[in-house]
Parts: sequence; C-alpha cells; structure tokens
Amino acid sequence: MTAVSLDDIRVTPLKRILTPGGDVLHALKESEPDFVGFGEAYFSWVEPGAIKAWKCHQRMTLNLVVPLGDVRFVFHLPNQGAEFRCEEIGESRYARLTVPPGIWFGFQCRGGQKSLLMNLADIAHDPGEVLRKPVSEIKYNWNAL
Amino acid sequence: MTAVSLDDIRVTPLKRILTPGGDVLHALKESEPDFVGFGEAYFSWVEPGAIKAWKCHQRMTLNLVVPLGDVRFVFHLPNQGAEFRCEEIGESRYARLTVPPGIWFGFQCRGGQKSLLMNLADIAHDPGEVLRKPVSEIKYNWNAL
Repeated sequence: MTAVSLDDIRVTPLKRILTPGGDVLHALKESEPDFVGFGEAYFSWVEPGAIKAWKCHQRMTLNLVVPLGDVRFVFHLPNQGAEFRCEEIGESRYARLTVPPGIWFGFQCRGGQKSLLMNLADIAHDPGEVLRKPVSEIKYNWNAL
Repeated sequence: MTAVSLDDIRVTPLKRILTPGGDVLHALKESEPDFVGFGEAYFSWVEPGAIKAWKCHQRMTLNLVVPLGDVRFVFHLPNQGAEFRCEEIGESRYARLTVPPGIWFGFQCRGGQKSLLMNLADIAHDPGEVLRKPVSEIKYNWNAL
C-alpha cells in the first residue's frame, strides 16, 4: 500500500447557479471521479469559534461541502513531520474537498455565523474505523489568520 | 406499471445528535430502504417568501432534507382530482421526504429566514426528464397556514 500524502486531498470548485427564489448549489455527481461510492450523507453544524479536532478515518473517503458559512480544514500526517495543509471552503470559496482515508484532520468555523458542513462518505458511520485525538494533542495554531 | 399515489411519498424522522461545537444531523444511509441509488447531491436555497413550483420528475426519486429553516412541500397528481398532499420539514420537524417519480411538486420557504434544501437524487440532473408548469397553472393556496 502506498502511503497517503497531503497532496492526495483534492479541491474541486463547484457551481452555484443563480436561480429565482434561491440559488442551486452543486455538490457531487456519480459521474465525477471524486465519487467513490455512497455510504452515508450527514451534516455537521460548526458554531462560531468552534473547533472540531482531531479525527482520522481509516477506511472512509470524505467528500466535504460547506453550503453555509466558511470552514477551515486542517490536515496532518503525524508520521511525516510538522507539515499541515489548510483549506478553507464555504460561501467565500464554494468548492468540494475530497479526503482519502489515513489523514488526520480537524476543522474550525470561520467568521461570525455558524457554518454547515455536509459529508458525502463512501461508507456509513462506523465508530470502529475512526481514530480520535484531543485538539491539544496535535499542535496547530488555530488562531492563524 | 402501477400508477403512483400521493401515499407513496414517505416521511422518515431523522436523528439530530447533540455534539459539542455543533450538532450532527443524519440525512441518508445506503442501508436504508429509502436509498435507491446515488446519482447526484445538490442544494437549493429557498429565500423567505419564495415559492418554487411546479416540477415533475419522470425518472428521478428524490430524497429531500432541510437542515436549515423550514420548507413546505406540496404534492399533486393532476389526473387524480384536486387533492394535494402537504408536508413541512426542516428545523421544526427534522425528517426526510422520499418522493418517487411521477408526482408534481412545489415548495415554499416558511418563516422569516432563508431555508436550505438538499436533494440526494438517484439520477444526475437531466433536463429531459423534468416536466415544468408555472406556479399559476396548478391552483393551490400557498397562503394557507
């Protein structure tokens, strides 16, 4: 098995279609290469100032979309030094993040309003495949602008 | 082919999981009977007061979830008299609507804030399978409380 790299995280700009009564926002199509199977879709609210960290899925590929607000995602591989990859998605940059298994990540609400995250995962939630660490265990400067 | 009926629309209460930093909201799992395949996921904003009507998908099964705000869905079968079925889902009643093909529907934002709708559809968007009528063409009292 080839080791996963932070470069394996893909960022795909998504379309926002101006529509009378309210815009339509693309998320994911079965025909896109980022689609690797459907296991579960769920939402996660992120309250202003909140940080949810750290998790590492051992089997799940995540497809993350933020239709409301803005969320900073921070990715890390503890075995590969002190490198972090940071991606902000949401209303300010409407895009999808595709995250393969084996990468530690946390996320943070940006701005003053609560944000809404959707994960389209290729497997259903299974507590047995998720590793967790408290936010303090991986040192990252969440106050960085 | 058996004719579709308004009783074929299913309403499934969904879990909201209290979580530090922001709740987690279930939407759809592959193992649930309402899952009939993944073609596309997309969002639709509905502005306060807005009505989006009418559409009829000839092939798509819709799985509709409203994580933000509240949306009234109105369903109709023009060939079966003046009957309407009305379901409101959203933050006030967090549930999923599963809508088989062949049913006319429209929807309306309820309350003073904009609402966000997600459709997990079993086929990708295809303009050729959607029938449309202007809102005035099917008489429904959208002002009803």
